[in-house]
Amino acid sequence: MAGYSVIGKRLPRIDGAAKAMGSAKYAADMALPMMLHGKIVRSPLPHARIVNIDTTLAERLPGVRGVITGKDFGGFRRGMLPNTRDEGALASDRVRYIGEGVAAVAAVDEDIAEEAVDLIKVDYEELPAVFHAMEAIKEGAPQIHDHVQNNMSWECHYHFGDVVEGFRKSDYIREDKFSTGYNIHGFLEPHAILADYDPTGRITVWASKQCPYFLLRHLGLLLGLSLDKVRVIQPHIGGGFGGKNDSFDLDFCAALLSKKTGRPVKIVYSQKELLTAGRRRHTMWMDIRTGVKRDGTLVALECKAIADGGAYTCTAPITMYLAGVILSLPYRLPNLKFDGQRVYTNKPAAVALRGHGAPHTRFAADVQLDMIAEDLGIDPVEIRLKNALKPGDITPSGLKISTCGLAECIERATETANWNEKKQGAKRVSGKIARGIGIACHGFVTGERLHPHDSCAAIVKVNEDGTVNLLTGATDIGQGSDTVLSMIAAEELGIHLDNIDFSRIDTAFTPIDVGSYSSRVTYMSGNAVKLAAADAKKQLGETAAKRLGAKVEDIEFKDGLVFVKHNPEKSMAFRQLARIACSHPESKAIIGKASYTFPTVGKFDFETGKGNASEEYSFGAEVSEVEVNIETGQVRYIQSTLAADCGKALNPMAVEGQLEGCIVQGQGQALHENFIIEQGKTINPNFADYRMPRSLDVPQIKGIPVETVTPGGPYGAKEGGEGVIISTPPAIVNAIHDAIGVWMKDLPVTPEKILKALRDKKGG
Amino acid sequence: MAGYSVIGKRLPRIDGAAKAMGSAKYAADMALPMMLHGKIVRSPLPHARIVNIDTTLAERLPGVRGVITGKDFGGFRRGMLPNTRDEGALASDRVRYIGEGVAAVAAVDEDIAEEAVDLIKVDYEELPAVFHAMEAIKEGAPQIHDHVQNNMSWECHYHFGDVVEGFRKSDYIREDKFSTGYNIHGFLEPHAILADYDPTGRITVWASKQCPYFLLRHLGLLLGLSLDKVRVIQPHIGGGFGGKNDSFDLDFCAALLSKKTGRPVKIVYSQKELLTAGRRRHTMWMDIRTGVKRDGTLVALECKAIADGGAYTCTAPITMYLAGVILSLPYRLPNLKFDGQRVYTNKPAAVALRGHGAPHTRFAADVQLDMIAEDLGIDPVEIRLKNALKPGDITPSGLKISTCGLAECIERATETANWNEKKQGAKRVSGKIARGIGIACHGFVTGERLHPHDSCAAIVKVNEDGTVNLLTGATDIGQGSDTVLSMIAAEELGIHLDNIDFSRIDTAFTPIDVGSYSSRVTYMSGNAVKLAAADAKKQLGETAAKRLGAKVEDIEFKDGLVFVKHNPEKSMAFRQLARIACSHPESKAIIGKASYTFPTVGKFDFETGKGNASEEYSFGAEVSEVEVNIETGQVRYIQSTLAADCGKALNPMAVEGQLEGCIVQGQGQALHENFIIEQGKTINPNFADYRMPRSLDVPQIKGIPVETVTPGGPYGAKEGGEGVIISTPPAIVNAIHDAIGVWMKDLPVTPEKILKALRDKKGG
Repeated sequence: MAGYSVIGKRLPRIDGAAKAMGSAKYAADMALPMMLHGKIVRSPLPHARIVNIDTTLAERLPGVRGVITGKDFGGFRRGMLPNTRDEGALASDRVRYIGEGVAAVAAVDEDIAEEAVDLIKVDYEELPAVFHAMEAIKEGAPQIHDHVQNNMSWECHYHFGDVVEGFRKSDYIREDKFSTGYNIHGFLEPHAILADYDPTGRITVWASKQCPYFLLRHLGLLLGLSLDKVRVIQPHIGGGFGGKNDSFDLDFCAALLSKKTGRPVKIVYSQKELLTAGRRRHTMWMDIRTGVKRDGTLVALECKAIADGGAYTCTAPITMYLAGVILSLPYRLPNLKFDGQRVYTNKPAAVALRGHGAPHTRFAADVQLDMIAEDLGIDPVEIRLKNALKPGDITPSGLKISTCGLAECIERATETANWNEKKQGAKRVSGKIARGIGIACHGFVTGERLHPHDSCAAIVKVNEDGTVNLLTGATDIGQGSDTVLSMIAAEELGIHLDNIDFSRIDTAFTPIDVGSYSSRVTYMSGNAVKLAAADAKKQLGETAAKRLGAKVEDIEFKDGLVFVKHNPEKSMAFRQLARIACSHPESKAIIGKASYTFPTVGKFDFETGKGNASEEYSFGAEVSEVEVNIETGQVRYIQSTLAADCGKALNPMAVEGQLEGCIVQGQGQALHENFIIEQGKTINPNFADYRMPRSLDVPQIKGIPVETVTPGGPYGAKEGGEGVIISTPPAIVNAIHDAIGVWMKDLPVTPEKILKALRDKKGG
Repeated sequence: MAGYSVIGKRLPRIDGAAKAMGSAKYAADMALPMMLHGKIVRSPLPHARIVNIDTTLAERLPGVRGVITGKDFGGFRRGMLPNTRDEGALASDRVRYIGEGVAAVAAVDEDIAEEAVDLIKVDYEELPAVFHAMEAIKEGAPQIHDHVQNNMSWECHYHFGDVVEGFRKSDYIREDKFSTGYNIHGFLEPHAILADYDPTGRITVWASKQCPYFLLRHLGLLLGLSLDKVRVIQPHIGGGFGGKNDSFDLDFCAALLSKKTGRPVKIVYSQKELLTAGRRRHTMWMDIRTGVKRDGTLVALECKAIADGGAYTCTAPITMYLAGVILSLPYRLPNLKFDGQRVYTNKPAAVALRGHGAPHTRFAADVQLDMIAEDLGIDPVEIRLKNALKPGDITPSGLKISTCGLAECIERATETANWNEKKQGAKRVSGKIARGIGIACHGFVTGERLHPHDSCAAIVKVNEDGTVNLLTGATDIGQGSDTVLSMIAAEELGIHLDNIDFSRIDTAFTPIDVGSYSSRVTYMSGNAVKLAAADAKKQLGETAAKRLGAKVEDIEFKDGLVFVKHNPEKSMAFRQLARIACSHPESKAIIGKASYTFPTVGKFDFETGKGNASEEYSFGAEVSEVEVNIETGQVRYIQSTLAADCGKALNPMAVEGQLEGCIVQGQGQALHENFIIEQGKTINPNFADYRMPRSLDVPQIKGIPVETVTPGGPYGAKEGGEGVIISTPPAIVNAIHDAIGVWMKDLPVTPEKILKALRDKKGG
């Protein structure tokens, strides 16, 4: 840890100025000469057979250059696993949700494209639809896909340890039902792509994606092109949160329309389109049964979860894996049984969203833990400390906990929040305002192994003036990874951050990276960058050793200087060294490169859930303080005290930004955000009616770093951008209970639900 | 040589389809949102002091967003060497040729920009001008630059061996005067740049350049940016021939206007602008004196050359170096003295053009050799064979000839052309048509060491499907290097050329390359690619060895297969190997990289001319047959028989294209092309009046490969794109003499000059 010059500093983002000054370009800003604008024709019905599509009028409209329908994609299917490829690029024979794409047009401007959309006549034969997962799994429910019975999109049945035996040994068992809301990612930059198909059999796209290499593969499959002939260029990205992992209708339509018209085609989602037809988070219903010893020690947990998956399967295997396996984080749990069922409904498909499947089941488990504590008369802090995972633990499914600061997080957070005093204190602070304090904890993966090719690579190109171009395939979707990766390169090379340039991704040039999901970038891509910088340093070191008359292994790089260890007056400037190494007679091109993959983690086993999912796990404890207005039912989230173990915080300011973002997004899901659906139609497809927290809603946040130094992370880093969202909702719900004595088991906790619960309590 | 699968094949260009179908984009095709169009205000006077520039009216014109003048560039000067920085980005105090830029505007469209140009009022105080180098060096001539006397832009005085002693030992000495024409490169894509300055202190440009890394450095200097903050992207390039090596007024103006306006700025030269104000070839006047033994053995050569350099010095040190030192190629010449003077005149600056300084002096020397042969009664072929350089020779200035097929070239070319019969045969083929045959030879460098950082690097990125992205900084300006470099990668990796993609240059990503000049790309960049592919192969070989149960060093790659040497039935497909290596559990990112620089060549010594200029030298012999109409003076070039030693021809079709291009461009300079200048004004700034050879002018060309295999070249390649232009003009002039008995010493050989020479001969 000693003496870093760049790492650990609170440095502003390298893309901050460009974003603030407006020079940062996003996919929707891209334009090419002769470019067409594409629009997608969307189904007005939740479930229907497509009888006929008449595109004649649209094709005749002056300015329209191309029209395609689902049939133009041949049999192209998409999905994560061979047996989950249940979705086309557009619907071709049947629509399964309101807003599903059935055709697309490309025209010389957006107005004509809109007009053409209106001129496309689709004859539908309406089918009975089902909108609730609980209805959809009932016998006799409308069948949304022919290939499965009972609308079962994906199910998993995990059993680690022996819950039967566990419950037998338990002194106390409690069973509850919980459910979560219907949320969306809420990124401010909607989906956008510009596709430029070259008739010689290549395609270049500019796209707003978390995982450019996923899109690369998808377009290769769609167009029958090898990977060298597909080029994905990444402009700046305005948020993702899991919602831009995958490829969507616009991506496939832009590519095919460009191929068909011979011109570049841009498609940009409107926010309304996104909030009507875009992917969203699963809603989940959980039956959870937990057995403990009298002292609160967890013995067994059984959870049955039903998730509303919408019309297609997408990343369901991961959702349900995380929903199940993360139940064994962050507390020791010797016996765990999880039965997950993800169900088709006639709604847009559900996918990953910050925390993915974990926040649902962990919400249930962490609130229930408070219930159990209350039942047994144990303090919520005490029961958590008793059960907290410790370094060296291995969970029953096989997660290997190498570093874990959870106990310290619990202690520091509660101490800072003045837990004891507040917990014991009076709850009613005025006639109608009750105050409460709650705690919840979390643990999360630092990346996971999903795609067979999941290495991340980096190239460090040292220029003759001692500046560096850093090449990685890692996508900064707003989390600040461009900055952190550049900091890693700067630290390793011993130069100033300003001397590193990071030009984002162009898959023709930048090395492969798995993508920005599962909080992997700092750890995996960071390791690749560190190794690549070390490789460049080694090459430079040879020249330095010659010049300074020392051994290569004794050359050190720091603060713009290159010097001999134990003899630091023998030194030269990094920029001088670069110039010498690059110039005659050596004339080397200094190019460092490396790739990194998890050394010990195996492939995901979606069937059994067994194995170590990640190289490292993050932990944290969050203390929430709320004020509940017992007359209006409104909850004010007033204070969050978060102690987080994300390993070494490479840029504390960036880590804080992520942690605060998690808390606010978790607050939204706990208290505010929910789609209202009527007969499959989203009633609130805008950010006025789908209410995310505003600046005035945000609590005071006190962050406490509990740094563990992971041996495998770059400079000791691990996950810091996702796990916290797991603990926020249960911490809030536990605080609400502390304030008003009711358990809110259904998210979001709206004023109506509060008032009803208070009425029920009074009545009961 | 044995058993190549890709190398040595006649393969079409990988960019051919895109160029034929129109999808290849050039710099002028680029566009960005909010882009402005720039135009340059040019001087109407050849020599004048700038008294005042009034930009008020232009700035007030609606649609104009920025106006700059020379003063806005501060003291920015450019030039190759510290003591040759005699040029600004725009003229600031004084204009020195008609067409020199004095101001520039950026406006929302081209028409407004044109209008704004007309509204800029420049007050000049006209100065006396001088347009002919011979006048410019006279005492009392107008002085074009204050810092030198007698308009001496650059001079060099080389002496290798001892010419005094050489002439003393000579049996026969002859002295003649020669001169060459005033030519331009004639590329079809004029200069173009799009510059996008980012207010956070970065710039991205799309530019038509032979040496993107030169532009990178120039823009860094201009804007005070480090090299990581300057990004040069190369679209396709429509020809260069030396005329796009450097950075010009438009490059600096677009960058500064973009910085000033905060918007992207595009500037595209018109052909008229280019042919009026653009760089061109030197005109040279040579006094040449050669001494030989009675049997024709060359003993000494002394040459005084005066070159018309135009208004600025530019690359003069190289021009004059090549004019001097290449006099000792391709014949053995123990004693050589060269006095070169490059003189300022009030015309656009002269720079490199295919062959650079060499075609001038070599034209003189190779015609004079025929004169000497005639004087001594020796056959022109015999005198060349007698003097031809041989492998192992070292010229008196230190050029080391490692491979040399010149003697074989002479024998094969003359045999194929049926030299003896035609040389002896009747010259008059009809009443007014005389036929003649001539020979000339050439030798040239395969790259030279110019910039201190002159390594070329390459990165080979292997995708999981076994396809490859090749990254180099080498620019294909039309010569086909993208194809040849891809072929080298394909051969080395044992895969099909179709499985390699080459995305041209983006300096943020692609590794450094010196640039496409001095015929270095195949050799230098090719070596880098070959080494980078070998590096990738090594990484893949480790996986193959494990899978095939063999040693790494026994793994071979060929024809899409990877197999065990001596046990080839143990094999796997390359694509299968790539997938395995990239996938769990190995999950490597296969990235090969390498850099290459000349191992033995030193830095140019412009002062003494001594040292080995290049790693390898090309050679060739060219037999030309012409028909001269003695009534009209017109010369028809009917047959060229060329035997060329360019080492191993990696793609014979591409080599032929280059050789043929050289012959036709040489033919243009021998017979057709010449700028007419009146008082510094170019009278024929268009391709109707500046007459390049048309398809009907082109001779039958018979190419004979004489392949030597250079040990250092990739697969044995050396220069093949430039040297031939040296021998074409003397071969034609020698053939004209054979036809009509007159020596044409001044290029181009126009009908008027022929008729005058015939009249003089008759009269004399």
